[in-house]
Amino acid sequence: MRLADLTWPDIDSLNRDLPVLIPVAALEQHGRHMPVFTDSLLMGEVARRAEKVLGRHALFAPLQWLGNSHHHLDFPGTLSAEPRLYLDLLCGLVENFLHHGFRRVLIINGHGGNDVPGKQAIFELRQRHRDRMDLLLLFATYWHLAPGGHAAHPDLQQPEMGHAGEWETSMVLRLAPELVRDHRQAPDVPFGQGFEPASRGWTMRDRSEPGHIGRPALATPEKGEALFEHFTSGLVRLVERMEAWDGVTWDG
Amino acid sequence: MRLADLTWPDIDSLNRDLPVLIPVAALEQHGRHMPVFTDSLLMGEVARRAEKVLGRHALFAPLQWLGNSHHHLDFPGTLSAEPRLYLDLLCGLVENFLHHGFRRVLIINGHGGNDVPGKQAIFELRQRHRDRMDLLLLFATYWHLAPGGHAAHPDLQQPEMGHAGEWETSMVLRLAPELVRDHRQAPDVPFGQGFEPASRGWTMRDRSEPGHIGRPALATPEKGEALFEHFTSGLVRLVERMEAWDGVTWDG
Amino acid sequence: MRLADLTWPDIDSLNRDLPVLIPVAALEQHGRHMPVFTDSLLMGEVARRAEKVLGRHALFAPLQWLGNSHHHLDFPGTLSAEPRLYLDLLCGLVENFLHHGFRRVLIINGHGGNDVPGKQAIFELRQRHRDRMDLLLLFATYWHLAPGGHAAHPDLQQPEMGHAGEWETSMVLRLAPELVRDHRQAPDVPFGQGFEPASRGWTMRDRSEPGHIGRPALATPEKGEALFEHFTSGLVRLVERMEAWDGVTWDG
Amino acid sequence: MRLADLTWPDIDSLNRDLPVLIPVAALEQHGRHMPVFTDSLLMGEVARRAEKVLGRHALFAPLQWLGNSHHHLDFPGTLSAEPRLYLDLLCGLVENFLHHGFRRVLIINGHGGNDVPGKQAIFELRQRHRDRMDLLLLFATYWHLAPGGHAAHPDLQQPEMGHAGEWETSMVLRLAPELVRDHRQAPDVPFGQGFEPASRGWTMRDRSEPGHIGRPALATPEKGEALFEHFTSGLVRLVERMEAWDGVTWDG
Amino acid sequence: MRLADLTWPDIDSLNRDLPVLIPVAALEQHGRHMPVFTDSLLMGEVARRAEKVLGRHALFAPLQWLGNSHHHLDFPGTLSAEPRLYLDLLCGLVENFLHHGFRRVLIINGHGGNDVPGKQAIFELRQRHRDRMDLLLLFATYWHLAPGGHAAHPDLQQPEMGHAGEWETSMVLRLAPELVRDHRQAPDVPFGQGFEPASRGWTMRDRSEPGHIGRPALATPEKGEALFEHFTSGLVRLVERMEAWDGVTWDG
Amino acid sequence: MRLADLTWPDIDSLNRDLPVLIPVAALEQHGRHMPVFTDSLLMGEVARRAEKVLGRHALFAPLQWLGNSHHHLDFPGTLSAEPRLYLDLLCGLVENFLHHGFRRVLIINGHGGNDVPGKQAIFELRQRHRDRMDLLLLFATYWHLAPGGHAAHPDLQQPEMGHAGEWETSMVLRLAPELVRDHRQAPDVPFGQGFEPASRGWTMRDRSEPGHIGRPALATPEKGEALFEHFTSGLVRLVERMEAWDGVTWDG
Repeated sequence: MRLADLTWPDIDSLNRDLPVLIPVAALEQHGRHMPVFTDSLLMGEVARRAEKVLGRHALFAPLQWLGNSHHHLDFPGTLSAEPRLYLDLLCGLVENFLHHGFRRVLIINGHGGNDVPGKQAIFELRQRHRDRMDLLLLFATYWHLAPGGHAAHPDLQQPEMGHAGEWETSMVLRLAPELVRDHRQAPDVPFGQGFEPASRGWTMRDRSEPGHIGRPALATPEKGEALFEHFTSGLVRLVERMEAWDGVTWDG
Repeated sequence: MRLADLTWPDIDSLNRDLPVLIPVAALEQHGRHMPVFTDSLLMGEVARRAEKVLGRHALFAPLQWLGNSHHHLDFPGTLSAEPRLYLDLLCGLVENFLHHGFRRVLIINGHGGNDVPGKQAIFELRQRHRDRMDLLLLFATYWHLAPGGHAAHPDLQQPEMGHAGEWETSMVLRLAPELVRDHRQAPDVPFGQGFEPASRGWTMRDRSEPGHIGRPALATPEKGEALFEHFTSGLVRLVERMEAWDGVTWDG
Repeated sequence: MRLADLTWPDIDSLNRDLPVLIPVAALEQHGRHMPVFTDSLLMGEVARRAEKVLGRHALFAPLQWLGNSHHHLDFPGTLSAEPRLYLDLLCGLVENFLHHGFRRVLIINGHGGNDVPGKQAIFELRQRHRDRMDLLLLFATYWHLAPGGHAAHPDLQQPEMGHAGEWETSMVLRLAPELVRDHRQAPDVPFGQGFEPASRGWTMRDRSEPGHIGRPALATPEKGEALFEHFTSGLVRLVERMEAWDGVTWDG
Repeated sequence: MRLADLTWPDIDSLNRDLPVLIPVAALEQHGRHMPVFTDSLLMGEVARRAEKVLGRHALFAPLQWLGNSHHHLDFPGTLSAEPRLYLDLLCGLVENFLHHGFRRVLIINGHGGNDVPGKQAIFELRQRHRDRMDLLLLFATYWHLAPGGHAAHPDLQQPEMGHAGEWETSMVLRLAPELVRDHRQAPDVPFGQGFEPASRGWTMRDRSEPGHIGRPALATPEKGEALFEHFTSGLVRLVERMEAWDGVTWDG
Repeated sequence: MRLADLTWPDIDSLNRDLPVLIPVAALEQHGRHMPVFTDSLLMGEVARRAEKVLGRHALFAPLQWLGNSHHHLDFPGTLSAEPRLYLDLLCGLVENFLHHGFRRVLIINGHGGNDVPGKQAIFELRQRHRDRMDLLLLFATYWHLAPGGHAAHPDLQQPEMGHAGEWETSMVLRLAPELVRDHRQAPDVPFGQGFEPASRGWTMRDRSEPGHIGRPALATPEKGEALFEHFTSGLVRLVERMEAWDGVTWDG
Repeated sequence: MRLADLTWPDIDSLNRDLPVLIPVAALEQHGRHMPVFTDSLLMGEVARRAEKVLGRHALFAPLQWLGNSHHHLDFPGTLSAEPRLYLDLLCGLVENFLHHGFRRVLIINGHGGNDVPGKQAIFELRQRHRDRMDLLLLFATYWHLAPGGHAAHPDLQQPEMGHAGEWETSMVLRLAPELVRDHRQAPDVPFGQGFEPASRGWTMRDRSEPGHIGRPALATPEKGEALFEHFTSGLVRLVERMEAWDGVTWDG
C-alpha cells in the first residue's frame, strides 16, 4: 500500500505490525550522461515494483529524494542536506511512524552516500527507545539486499554498483531512456581502491572528472530490466522476513 | 524546466539569474474523505502547470513533501518534521541553490502550516547573506498569490481556503477523484475566529473531530479546475516579476 | 499587576487562569531622528497603560527589549538576538510561566521583526504540549490588535505603521520628546511593495538610507496620544477575552 | 551614556575604544520579603549611579533582566533562561557590540547565578576571536569589584553578600521601601559551607525554606546607601582602568 | 612517537605530512568475565606495538577511551557518549590536528560501536574542507585492517571478532590475565544473523544475557599474542601507505 | 577501586552511595620545557595516590585527558574540545553514572581551563535533576582542595599554581624527569594581574611567549613529592566527607 493514497481512518485501521518502508535516495550529479534525479528514479522504481508484489503486506511512504550528497556539491545542480540535518531527517521520519504505533520500519535506500548516515540513524533510534524490545528498526541499501547483482544478466561486466556506471545507466535506460545522453561516449572511470580496508573521506572531484565511476558505455535496457527484477526480489524477501518476525528475537 | 531531468552540464550552462522554484507541501491528514498526500498533490499540480507555461524561464526543484505538520500529528498517518528541522530543511535547500550561484529563489508552498516557518527561513537566509544585495529570496503560499480565489468559479461558497474543505476537495476531485471518499457526507466545520487578531497556537484536535475545516460537501471537479487555473496564473505572474527584476531595487 | 513587584508568596497565591502578558520589543536603529530604544519605549508605554486599566485582572512580565533585529544590524547600535536564539528566548519565557502553572499566556509584541518568530514560537510551544487543551497561548503585535489605527486621529496620514514613520515618531514625541531629533527634516521614504503578495527577505539597507520608512515629518504628540489610547484599548479588549475564555473552545 | 537614548548616527560617531557596559541581572524569588526583580533593581541602580559619574566615558546597554536562575525555579514567579540559552544570550550581546566595532566590553553582573556562565561566555568569546589581541572582554559581578563591602557601613554584620539577606534588603529599602514586606520577621538562614572548597550543584530548596540566605532583619536604608556608594565606586574604578588600557598588554 | 611526551617546540618541528593516529575505543561491559576497559586495553596495546615499529614515522595521540556504547548502557558500568556528542568528539580531535597543519590523519578504532560514527565523522570532515585535496582523512577499525584474523593462530575457532568472545578474551589473557574471571565457564553465545544484509538497530540485551557474543571459553594467551601480532602488522602496513601517499591521488 | 578493572557484575554489586570520581585534565602546551600531557600526568598521579589510600571507599573512572584548552591552541600540539562540547562531555560522564544509580559524583580536575566549564556542568546537571535532593554532585580542581600549597615544602617560592611553573615542573620532575627539558633555562614569566577582580578573556599568547607562567627554574623533584602528598591528602579528605554525607543536608 502507498501511504500517500490513504486517509487517516484507513491508516488508523491498519495492524501496527505491518512492515513500513521509507524509501530514501538523492538528487545529485550523475555524470555528463544522466539526470540528477537518477538515484530517486531508480529507488522509486524498485519501491513501485515491490509495492505491487507486496500489496497489503507493507506500507510505503513516499520517496524522500533529498539525500546526503555533500561529496557531489562541486557539480552544479546537486541538492544535499547538511550531514547532521540528514540524520535528523531520517530519525524524524521513523519517529513519526513510531508515534502512530508502528513497530517494524525499514529505511530502504537508493544512494551510496546515505549508507553510513542511515546506519547511524537506526542506531540512534534504537538507543532512544532502548526499552522497546518489540521494535524492528532496519536500514538497507537496495543493491545490498540481493547479492550477486553482477549475475543478474549474463552480459553485465561491472562487478558491482558504481556511481552512474553500467548498472545505473542500464536501469535508467530501461526506465526513462529519453533522459540519458550519449552514454556510449562516456569514458571508463576505474573504481580505484582508495585506502581500503580503511575508509577515506572523499569528494567526487577527487575521483572522477565527468562525475561517474565505472563503465556507462556498456549499459543496455535489458541489463536494466534484469537488475530491477533482481533488486526488487531482494527487497521483497526482506519485507517478508519483517512480516514473519516473531516480535522478540534478534534474528529474522 | 524540471531540475530533476537535467544533467549537471545542463545546469552548469544556465543563466544564474534564472528564477528557481522550490515547491514544498506536506503529508498530513486531510479529513476522513481525502488522502494524506492532498497538499502535495495540489502543490505538485500547480507547479506542473506553471512549469509548462514558463518553460525555459524558470527552474523547478522536485516537490519536498515533508512539511511542518505537528498540529496534525494526533491523526494517524501524518508525517511531520520537527519545527526546527523544518527551518533547517528549507534554509538548506535554498543554500544549495546559492552554492551553485543562483540568485533568485522562490519557495512556493502548498500547506498552511509551512507559512510561518517559510517566512522565518527566508528571513534567516537573507540575514546570513546580509551583504548580498543581488539576492532575491522569496516565500509564498500559492493560494495567496491570486487573491479572490472565491471568485474563480461562480458556485464557490467558501470565502477562503480551508483545510480539506470545498476548495481543496474540489481540486483533488479534478486531479484524482478515485482518492476521494464520500465527501458529500462530510459535515460542515466552521472556521471559527480563534482569538484573532491575535495568533493562537493550536492543534487540529482543538478545532475539528473529522480533521477538515470548511464544507467539503460542496466540492466539484469544475470548481477544482477553476481554482487550479486561478492559482497557476498567480504563480506565473510572480515568476515573471522575478525574471523582470532589475537585480537591485526592493520592489518587483 | 507587575510581576516584578511581587514576592514569590504573592505569585503563589494567584489564580493560575489569570492572563499573563510578556511584552517584547527591540533595540534597533530608528532612523536619524529617533533613539534605538523606540520600540521598547512604545511597547512599554502601551503595557503600562493596559496594566493600569486591567489591575488585578492580568499579570505583566517586564519588557524583554532584546529582539529579532538582524535586518537592522548594518546600522550602528542595533542589538539583536540570533534568529534561533530569539525563538528559544520566547519559548523559554512562556515555558517559565507554564512551569509555574499559568495557562493563559500572551506574548505582546512591539516590533515588526518579532512577528514571524513570535508566531513560530507559539506554534512550537503548543506542539510541545500537544495534550494540554487547557492552554491558551497567544502572540500579537500591538498595532494589529486595534484595526483602523489611521482613524485614531483625524490628521494621521500614513495608512499603517511604518518603521520610525509618522505613527512611531508621534508616540515618542508624546512620551519622550527630548529624545527626538529634527524629525521635521526627515525625508519621506515610501513603503514600496516588495514582491507582495510573496514575502521577500530584506535588510533595512535595501529599503532606506536614513533607516526609517514613512513620513516622520508629519508627527505630533497629539497623534501620539491618540495612537496610544487606540492601541491600549485593543490590548485591553484582547486580555478581557482571555480572561473570559471558557478554558475549552477554540474561539475566544 | 545610555545606548537606549542615542540615535544610530550618535553611536556611529563614537570612538570604538569607548568602554561598553552590558548590565545583567535576574528575575527570581528573593525570599518572602522582597520582590522578584530585586537583582535587577539593584544592578540597575549601581549602573545608573556609575553612568552618572562616567558620563561620556562609557556606553551603557539597557539591563538584561533575564538571568540564569534555574536553581530558583521551585519558587513561583522565577523566570530563567535555559543554561545554554543564557550562554548564547551573553555571547550574542557582546558579539553585537563587536560587530559595531567596539573593542572594550564589560558584562557587569548583579546575580550570583550568572557568575559562572558569565565567565564561560567571556572565555568562549575570546577564543572565537583568538587573533584579536586588541579586544578587552571582561566579566565582573558588581559586589566583587569593591572588596570589603562589609566595611562600607559600621553596622553591617553579614560578612558577605547573601541571597536576599542584610545587604540586598538594605539596598532595596534604600531604593524602593514600598516593595519590602516584614523583613524584620525574616529568620536568619545560615550560609552553610556546602562542600567547600569543592563546588556543589544546588537548588535553593536544598538550602532555605523561605528562599533567602543571611539576615534580612538587620537591614536598614542607611546600610543600603553605603553599599550602593561602595559598589558604584568599585565599578567606576574598573571602567577607568578599561579606558586607560594601552590596547595591548594583559594587565590593566 | 607519542604526542603526549613531546613539547610544543618538538611538535612545531615535525613535518606536517607525518601520519597522525588517533586511537579510539570504549569503556563498556565485556561480559561477566572481562573488565569494562577491555576495548581500550586492546586498542592501546595494538597502538603501543605499532608505535614501537613505526618510531619517527608516525605521531600517536593518546587513546580516547570514551566511545559510542549506548547499546551497552543496560549493563552497569558502561560509560558512553551521546551519539551526536561522539561525532563531535571525533571531528573535534581531527580538527585540532588540521589546525596545527597536519594533513594525514587516521582515526584507528578498537570498538565495533564506533565503526559507523567513525565513518560519519570522516565524511563530515572531508566535506567541511571540501577544497583541501591535500587531505588524507582515514578511519579504520583495527581488526578490519588484517583480514584473515582467524588464521592468525591454528587453534582459533571463531570465524570473526565477537564482543568479549574467543579473540578478545585471548588478547586480554595475554595482556592482563589477572583481570579475566572464569572465562572457561562462560557459555557460547551465537552471533545470530539479525536481518542481514539489512542493518538492525540493537542493544546488547536483545542478543546476550551475559553480555558477550562468541566463545570465550576457547581463549588462550597464545592465541592472544598471535592476534596482537596479526593486527599490529595490519596497522603498520596502513600507516606505511599513508606515509608513501603522493599527496594527490585517490588510491594509496 | 578503578572502574576500568571491574566487570559489570562487580559494578552491579556496589553500593550506589559509593563516592565516584571522574578525573579530568588536558593535553596542551606546557612551555618549551614540559610535555603536552603534563596536566594529565599530574592529575593521574594524584588520582592514583588517592585511589590507593581510599581502596574500596571510592570508585575512580579513567582520566579524561581531553580538556577545555582553546586558549592554548596557538601552540602546536594542543588538543582541545570546543567549549560547548566540553560541557556536554562532562555532563554526559556524570549522567552515565546517574544512569547506573550512583548518587555521589565528583569531577576532580587538574587543568585551570576546566574550572569554569566544570562548575557550569555541575550547575546544569543539578538543575536537570532538580527533584533529586539525594544527589551530591561536586566539581573541584585538585590544587584548590588543599589550601596552603606553597607551604607544602619550605623552599617553594611561587605563591600559587602557575601554568608550567615551579609547582608543575617540580611534580613532573618527580614523576617523569626524562620528559623535562632544560627547565633551569626557562625565564621567569610574571603572573600579571589582568583586570582583576574582573575576569578577562585571554589566550596564552596574550601572556607568555614560551607558554609558561611562573618560575620553572626553581623546580625540584623534592618539591614535587611534597606537592603530590599535599594535594592527595586534600582530595582524600573531600572523598571522606562525601562518604560521610548524610544524604540530605547542604553541608558536608
